[in-house]
Amino acid sequence: MLGAWRGWRALRRCSSLPRAVRLRVRQALGAREPAEAVRVQGWVRSVRSQKEVLFLHINDGSSLESLQVVADPSLEKKDLTFGSAVEVQGKLVKSPHRMQNMELQAETIRVVGPCDIWSFPLKMKERHPLEYVRQFPHLRCRNNTLGALLRIRSEATAGIHSFFQDNGYVHIHTPIITSNDCEGAGELFQIETPREAKESAEMTHFFNVPAFLTVSGQLHLEVMAGAFTHVFTFGPTFRAENSQSRRHLAEFYMVEAELSFTESLQDIMQVMEDLFKTVTSTVLSKCPRDVELFHKYIAPAQKGRLEQILKHKFMIISYSEAVEILKQAPQTFTFKPEWGRDLQTEHEKYLVKHCGDVPVFVVNYPYDLKPFYMRDNEDGPQHTVAAVDLLVPGVGELCGGSLREERLPFLESRLQRLGLTDTYQWYLDLRKFGSVPHGGFGMGFERYLQYILGVDNIKDVIPFPRFSHSCLL
Amino acid sequence: MLGAWRGWRALRRCSSLPRAVRLRVRQALGAREPAEAVRVQGWVRSVRSQKEVLFLHINDGSSLESLQVVADPSLEKKDLTFGSAVEVQGKLVKSPHRMQNMELQAETIRVVGPCDIWSFPLKMKERHPLEYVRQFPHLRCRNNTLGALLRIRSEATAGIHSFFQDNGYVHIHTPIITSNDCEGAGELFQIETPREAKESAEMTHFFNVPAFLTVSGQLHLEVMAGAFTHVFTFGPTFRAENSQSRRHLAEFYMVEAELSFTESLQDIMQVMEDLFKTVTSTVLSKCPRDVELFHKYIAPAQKGRLEQILKHKFMIISYSEAVEILKQAPQTFTFKPEWGRDLQTEHEKYLVKHCGDVPVFVVNYPYDLKPFYMRDNEDGPQHTVAAVDLLVPGVGELCGGSLREERLPFLESRLQRLGLTDTYQWYLDLRKFGSVPHGGFGMGFERYLQYILGVDNIKDVIPFPRFSHSCLL
Repeated sequence: MLGAWRGWRALRRCSSLPRAVRLRVRQALGAREPAEAVRVQGWVRSVRSQKEVLFLHINDGSSLESLQVVADPSLEKKDLTFGSAVEVQGKLVKSPHRMQNMELQAETIRVVGPCDIWSFPLKMKERHPLEYVRQFPHLRCRNNTLGALLRIRSEATAGIHSFFQDNGYVHIHTPIITSNDCEGAGELFQIETPREAKESAEMTHFFNVPAFLTVSGQLHLEVMAGAFTHVFTFGPTFRAENSQSRRHLAEFYMVEAELSFTESLQDIMQVMEDLFKTVTSTVLSKCPRDVELFHKYIAPAQKGRLEQILKHKFMIISYSEAVEILKQAPQTFTFKPEWGRDLQTEHEKYLVKHCGDVPVFVVNYPYDLKPFYMRDNEDGPQHTVAAVDLLVPGVGELCGGSLREERLPFLESRLQRLGLTDTYQWYLDLRKFGSVPHGGFGMGFERYLQYILGVDNIKDVIPFPRFSHSCLL
Repeated sequence: MLGAWRGWRALRRCSSLPRAVRLRVRQALGAREPAEAVRVQGWVRSVRSQKEVLFLHINDGSSLESLQVVADPSLEKKDLTFGSAVEVQGKLVKSPHRMQNMELQAETIRVVGPCDIWSFPLKMKERHPLEYVRQFPHLRCRNNTLGALLRIRSEATAGIHSFFQDNGYVHIHTPIITSNDCEGAGELFQIETPREAKESAEMTHFFNVPAFLTVSGQLHLEVMAGAFTHVFTFGPTFRAENSQSRRHLAEFYMVEAELSFTESLQDIMQVMEDLFKTVTSTVLSKCPRDVELFHKYIAPAQKGRLEQILKHKFMIISYSEAVEILKQAPQTFTFKPEWGRDLQTEHEKYLVKHCGDVPVFVVNYPYDLKPFYMRDNEDGPQHTVAAVDLLVPGVGELCGGSLREERLPFLESRLQRLGLTDTYQWYLDLRKFGSVPHGGFGMGFERYLQYILGVDNIKDVIPFPRFSHSCLL
């Protein structure tokens, strides 16, 4: 009996088994006696009918691998097709095939829900391109690649929460609807009740003031960092960018953290690097097969690179150094690199390549390029602020952060020049009542997934992409 | 040396120590040698100056308790006031007072950021009412009650993620912007770019179609349950309700789960009950002091009740039974209870009281009261659907769920009668390609916090409340 018990125990560790089977195994372990019959539910991924035997592959979404079912051909039914939902009863046995650990010898097969294969856009054993499945937002999760993607996304989400929790951060739900505009720039979505939308603009707003979808939780996190020292948020952010870029969405997720009692940009960069490395290690160890799919079929060049990157310290260069590197580049850029101008995508690409295709921190940007809340470095003649961007291969800007201006006079004069003193009175208040040196950063979650998996289009790393001209479902 | 080392180890377990001290202790443990000097950063909660000694309480937001600092009166400075941010260097010693484990004997005190106490709305050692601090959304987190609340909220958030992850659910970010209206009712917020808002309604929309803020992620979760079997989401949802109720917000958080291969409402209720009990146990064990504050000062009647509730199975009654109970009630209701009519707040209150002030599931609601996606029980003459609400004392409806109609003909005829066949073609598709019996539920996160902590007004359990006529910051 002990032999049997050991066998079942090994089974439990076998991640390629559907969840139902694993649960059954766990129950059997609890009873210290292997259950004879197993019931498996899932969707048919393949049907292969031979003279003597019927082979099925059943998948329940808990892993990339399907369970092989072996049955007598008499159990075949007309509606037992690719895509149908089935319930199979039978015995789990060690597979004679080298590729599989276990297979299920079916005793009964019940089709729970048939699938109209002629109109079902996914086809058996076909490797559909990502562009193709993107047309079917309600069905594409049943495609192997999207399935793997969403399992990885789920593990990465959990990994991000754990990272901050383990490091003593308090999680804050920063508001989605806000009367602020953190970045100071346009590209905002406005919110109205349908009645307001139809009527004149003079009507009173639902919130009494114009309200927008958030572009960043930073200012609200700063409020909280003034009470809890270390805080983070992980939620949706929005940009009304009229762009069809492969790196932009109208709705995307951002991880943001804010740290009080922090006087150096180095501290902020350390948290960014630790976050990236910890979450990536978690994903690699929790979803090896799912990640493998991407590094095998989607981005073969990425294979093995991530492990290398996790072993080395990220590079740091200053904005000024970056401009020098660009000026000395043998190639010609569409936008001429010059101190005081924004780095363009072509520049970021070159810098990352120049540094050996690894993540690179660029620090200390020109004062005049950056928002009012960034901390004045009080240097010169090239006046900078304590800002940092993390650039990564293939994606460009993955994270952005800064020390925040905690000194009341500096902030006051800057807001005054911008004519924003009244709007940000509450923000100035934070500098009047126990202000402390602090800083933080944000990481684009979809770009993070794009980078680690080598996915070219951002629309393929989010369950339901929203972008200009498209809001399906 | 071992003695000292043991001492430090005990210290690490002492949750009343500020984070900075605990980190220092951890470092000391790592080095196997206690560090002599400790540096503590935080905000001053009280200053008491005596002839021979100066007492300070410093808090860094990691716990309700502050660290007592004992200093020579010569270290006192003018700007060392309540609310100021300080950095104290000194030695950590066992406190002679019974109430405290440790105190810090200060060697230096540096005021990092002074606090203008005359205009600071929070006052030393004053127990401000929740209504009062609500006026200062950017400062109220530095109040003890709100601080405790937000730490509990953070732990409950982590607990919810862990519960689902431990049970094999895949986390899905359901979309915030949607072209659907899940509940079929009004009260939606519409999204537009500011330019659209100003111009005529005939202008093309950013997304080509009218877009709204989500009221529920359910339909999108159903998509995913068709691939991953068990899925959950935990994000913001919105209602443009013109209400000043103590139970409604325009922006609130919902936990939603969806389970495939589920044929009984009992299975759904089991998950609801397990979720509630597991998360509440986590909160009680991780934030005992913070919870105690609420059960001591805010809702004394709640003290000890939660532990009792966790021990017992939740009650289940049918809607029809509920109506009978209400009809036989000795009291008169504003709305006369009658089969086929919605349960009103006054009815829910009575039912919960009648059942002994415990959580109560009400199941099988009239077919005509519920949305199209709920599963037809095919009973009669009183025709019901497999719906469930969880009612709790003081709050009313905490969760709502149902089995979903997975049978294509039932769903088709229902949508046809509502004239929604075209809108929900994609939803009908889910029933054509491997449809399975499934169901799910949603739990209002703020109402959950209201219930376990006994907080009367929902505006006090969310960091930045949004409701009609109010969108501060």
